[in-house]
Formats: sequence, structure tokens, C-alpha cells
Amino acid sequence: MDATNFFSELLKKNKRIIARAISYVESEYPQAEEILKKVHQHSGKAYRIGITGPPGAGKSTITNQLAKHYLQNGKSVAIIAVDPTSPFTGGALLGDRVRMSDIGKVENIFIRSMATRGSLGGLCKKAIDTADILDAAGYDYIILETVGVGQSELDIVKAADTTMVVLVPESGDSVQAMKAGLMEIADFFVVNKCDRPASEQAVNALRTILMLRNHDEKTFLPEIVKAVAQDNLGIKEIALEIKRHQTHLNKFDLLTKKRIQRTKDRIKEIVEEKLTQELWKQENVFSFEQLIEKSFEQKISPYTIADEILNTFKLNLSQKDDNGNTKSISSSV
Amino acid sequence: MDATNFFSELLKKNKRIIARAISYVESEYPQAEEILKKVHQHSGKAYRIGITGPPGAGKSTITNQLAKHYLQNGKSVAIIAVDPTSPFTGGALLGDRVRMSDIGKVENIFIRSMATRGSLGGLCKKAIDTADILDAAGYDYIILETVGVGQSELDIVKAADTTMVVLVPESGDSVQAMKAGLMEIADFFVVNKCDRPASEQAVNALRTILMLRNHDEKTFLPEIVKAVAQDNLGIKEIALEIKRHQTHLNKFDLLTKKRIQRTKDRIKEIVEEKLTQELWKQENVFSFEQLIEKSFEQKISPYTIADEILNTFKLNLSQKDDNGNTKSISSSV
Repeated sequence: MDATNFFSELLKKNKRIIARAISYVESEYPQAEEILKKVHQHSGKAYRIGITGPPGAGKSTITNQLAKHYLQNGKSVAIIAVDPTSPFTGGALLGDRVRMSDIGKVENIFIRSMATRGSLGGLCKKAIDTADILDAAGYDYIILETVGVGQSELDIVKAADTTMVVLVPESGDSVQAMKAGLMEIADFFVVNKCDRPASEQAVNALRTILMLRNHDEKTFLPEIVKAVAQDNLGIKEIALEIKRHQTHLNKFDLLTKKRIQRTKDRIKEIVEEKLTQELWKQENVFSFEQLIEKSFEQKISPYTIADEILNTFKLNLSQKDDNGNTKSISSSV
Repeated sequence: MDATNFFSELLKKNKRIIARAISYVESEYPQAEEILKKVHQHSGKAYRIGITGPPGAGKSTITNQLAKHYLQNGKSVAIIAVDPTSPFTGGALLGDRVRMSDIGKVENIFIRSMATRGSLGGLCKKAIDTADILDAAGYDYIILETVGVGQSELDIVKAADTTMVVLVPESGDSVQAMKAGLMEIADFFVVNKCDRPASEQAVNALRTILMLRNHDEKTFLPEIVKAVAQDNLGIKEIALEIKRHQTHLNKFDLLTKKRIQRTKDRIKEIVEEKLTQELWKQENVFSFEQLIEKSFEQKISPYTIADEILNTFKLNLSQKDDNGNTKSISSSV
């Protein structure tokens, strides 16, 4: 299949082609960037929902039920589930995802699990790239689901238009969420497994913490939705809360602002990644290793060596420039 | 006090001067890099111990007791406790540290809490810089204690010679540890609060997971130490396990290898940080913002814009070079 066909099939929601495009992104194939550049023109229509929270809170069950809810309302849904990797198996702990198989075959739904495979930062970027592909393919909702334990995973949900943080009633959970920076990114909260004892106290404790937040008219005040996702309780309320947040964003023209900010962050990340790749290309790493071996014994400070490497890198860049390999900013935008 | 005095006082373990040097590093004062460059020559003698694990596992109690143990054996100890920041207060959740006040005044001990204040990556670097200062000052042991929930926090303990992961007997904890990548970095495990029910099962479950690891003669097989740190039970065993690991590292010449690798990682990080700082200096960010605003409406791909920014940056670098601002790698090492 040639590139034009590939691309038009992708835009027609051809699942096989979409899956292949995502695989290119995941495996960092050279064609990935070309696809992403093309895809971008067609993205921006989907609404992106982030779901995070501590392990075992029931995020995948909520994702599952919420996807069903949207499907029943005639919408199409894509799910990007980011799973942490076990260092022993090298694979993702996908047990939770098994439960999703009952909706996996339905038309209008696309499910993709992404494993960390080492670099979390890279995964975040890939998840967002994947969202762009699915957005361009025409899915109405894109759900980005991740375990909220690390900074990079928080970055993934920051790429969402609306983010919910899922907690369970167990005591201490809300404090842990606060510690992990989850509170900061939540547009609203779901206290799942609310059939358990002490759920009322948990909701109240969370409410008390939330009331400490400063706010003005433009601030969206996060609600707490109680749910028993396994029994499909609270799912409609979650969908309503997403809608309420979306309406709020539109009312104050915040969605565009949010997306511009997101684009800025993303560009920044891409530039840094490209620059870093150039920095650590094979020949640089080689001379760098030699430099370290030589200087370790002499106890030369890492800061001094860093200066050396940086200067060499810059010198190489400028030599390259003499060959006309760089161009001005005005020439190709 | 002039720079020479400052530095000689630091090497004499003058606590006030050490604290000030660390503050320079924390606040990114211009003199920080100069101090770190000087300090490096005198570092490398301390043994660095990393302590991590999920919140509530009792890490600070173990740190406390272990420090006491070393003090009783005539050693000096510095503790760097890395605390997560609450987004609401802007300060660190230092409650746990209060308990440490009973050893805080003892001679031969230095305790420093470091809060995240936004950037986790930066914190990791600062914690390692702080370890260098304390190492040069002459502390025998440096304990790096952190909550093991994020990638950057794992990076902090990777900067240790020996790392222990502290768990509690509650079921699921070991699985969570595995998920969070803690298993990978543990030289040994401490199951704390072993007076609780089910501690035997927890230890056995952990042992089963550990047995799956590949190993040869050079591999240090992680032990599981049972402890009730609050009652000072298991602390001596922890110290012995640290010693056993240290002996193993020395026997197979692994400590130097580990430290060279650590230096490599650190230099890499410093270079990247410096380059990134140069990349996003004020004037670049300004033209970058304009570029985004202009191109957001036109739906130009972030990848295309990233290319533009990168090319402009390189062009600027090479122009600077014409003024003789870069130098070759051989000129100053």
C-alpha cells in the first residue's frame, strides 16, 4: 500500500492501518514522524479524557464502562491504556485489560495498550502521538488511562482535555493522592468502590481538602463522583461531569488555551528529544566515554567534563553549519 | 568569608557552611557550580546508601535507627531525605522527619530534607550534588532516602552504592513494588513492621518473585531482612546486609564500575540540562511562543515547528561560534 492510500485508509478508521501507524510510532520507525506530521492537520476534533489514580482503584473498569456508555450513545471511542512494565518479564502487566475483551470487538471502539519498556518519558510522547492518530482517524472520544504514580504518567493525563482521578475509600488514599500530585491535575474525582465501608468519610475528607483550593469564576470546581464501576453505578454521572467540565472550558474559551499550552509543552519535548538524540549520537557517545574513563581517575568534576562535551557538541554543530545543513526559521514554515 | 575559607571550613565539616553550600545548590545560585567543581576532588570516600519504598513503609524510622547504629559505632552519617511536595501548600510534607529530631543534634550527623518544588528531575540532580558536598565534608555514610513512586525518585537511589527497598507485609505490596520498578534497583529488601500478621507470607511471596531472577557468580543475590524498625529490631541485620553488599562489590571490582556508570549518567544529565537551558533561554522562548501562536490556527504539526526551532537554535549556536565562544575538547581538560 502506498503512502497516500495508507493515509486515506487511516482517516477512514481502518483499524488495521491505525494499528500499524501506532506500531510505527511505538517502535520509532522512520515513517512515524511523516505520519504524525500529516495526521496533525486532521486532529483536534476528538475530546480527550484522562483517567488516573493509584493501582487497584478500578481505572480500567471505569474506562470500560464509560466507553460502553459512549458507544450506547452512538459515539466512537479509542482507549490508550498505559501500563507499567515489570522488569522481570519485560512485558506489560496487562491483567486488568483482559476484562476489557468484552467490548474490544465492538465497532467504533479501538483499544491499545502501551507498555513502558524502559523510558517513561518516551512513552508519554508516544501515547500523545497515538492520541493524534486516533483523533485524526475520527474517534469522538479518546480515553488516556494510566496508573498515576510517576511524573511522566501525570504528563500523559495532562495531555487530556478533562482528567479524572480515581480513588478508593480506604483511609490515607486521598493524602497519598495529594502527595503524588494527583490533586493538581484532577478536573474531578471519582471515589470508586463506594459500596465499601467508610466511603462517606473518604468523600468528606476529600471534600475538605478540595475546599482549601483558591478559586475564582473561571476556576472549575472539581466535584466528587461516587461510583461502583463494577456494577455500572456512577458511570452516567461521570459522563455528565465530563460534559460539565467541557461546557465550562468552552464557556470561558479555556479549551483552546489548554490545547495551545499542550502544544507548546509537546513541541518543547520534541525539540529537546531531537536535540538530545543529536547530542548523544554514536560518535559523540564514543568520545564521551573515552573522556570519562580518562578523567574518572583524575577526579575531574562531572561539571567540568559536561562543559567540555557541550563545547565539543556546539563546535561540531557549527562546523556542520558551514556545509549548509541548517536553515533559518523563516525558510520552511 | 572568602571562597578559600568557605571551602576549607566545608572540608572541616562545619555544619553551617555545609548547609549554606547545599542551599546554594538547592536555589541554583551561580556559585553552586564552582563549589561542586571544587568539592568533587574531595569526594568518593563516603559510602552511599539508598532507601526507598512505598509511602508508610517506615523508611524514615529505618533511616533514623540505622544512623543511630552507625553513630554508636563511631561513624559519621549524613541523611538526605527527599520529600514530595503538596501542590496546595507549596511546602514539603515533613511530618515524618519530626521524629528524627532526637538524633538531629548529635555531632557527626547531618540531616537535610529536600522538597520537590515542581521539577522532580532537578531535585534528583540536586540530591546527588548534595551527596557530593557531604561526601567531601567527610561523612562516612550518606543515606539517600526517598519515596519510591516516581522515575526521578528511583534515579536518586540509583545514585547510591547500596540500595534497600522497604516494604510492609500487607498483601499486594510486593506486586506494587514490582510494578513500580523497585525490584530492579533493590540490592536487598527490608520487610518492615514484621510484627504484623501475614508477614511470613509476604516474605515468602517476595522470595518467590526474587527466585525468578537470572543470576551468575557476580550477581549479588538480594536477601530479605525482617524488621520492626520502631522497636529497633532488624537494624543490625540491615547494617550487616549493607556490609555484605559492599564486600561483594569490592570483591568483583563492581563498586568502581558502578561509580563510573553513575558518573556517566550524571554527566549526561548535566550536559542535557545545560543544553536545554541554553535552548530555552529568554529570547528563544519568545520567538518560539510567536511561532506557536501563528501556527496553531494553521494546524502546522508540532513536529514541523520543532524542526524549525531546532534549526534556528543550531544557526544561533554556530553564529556564536564565529565570535570564538566555543572551544575544542582538548583545550581545557
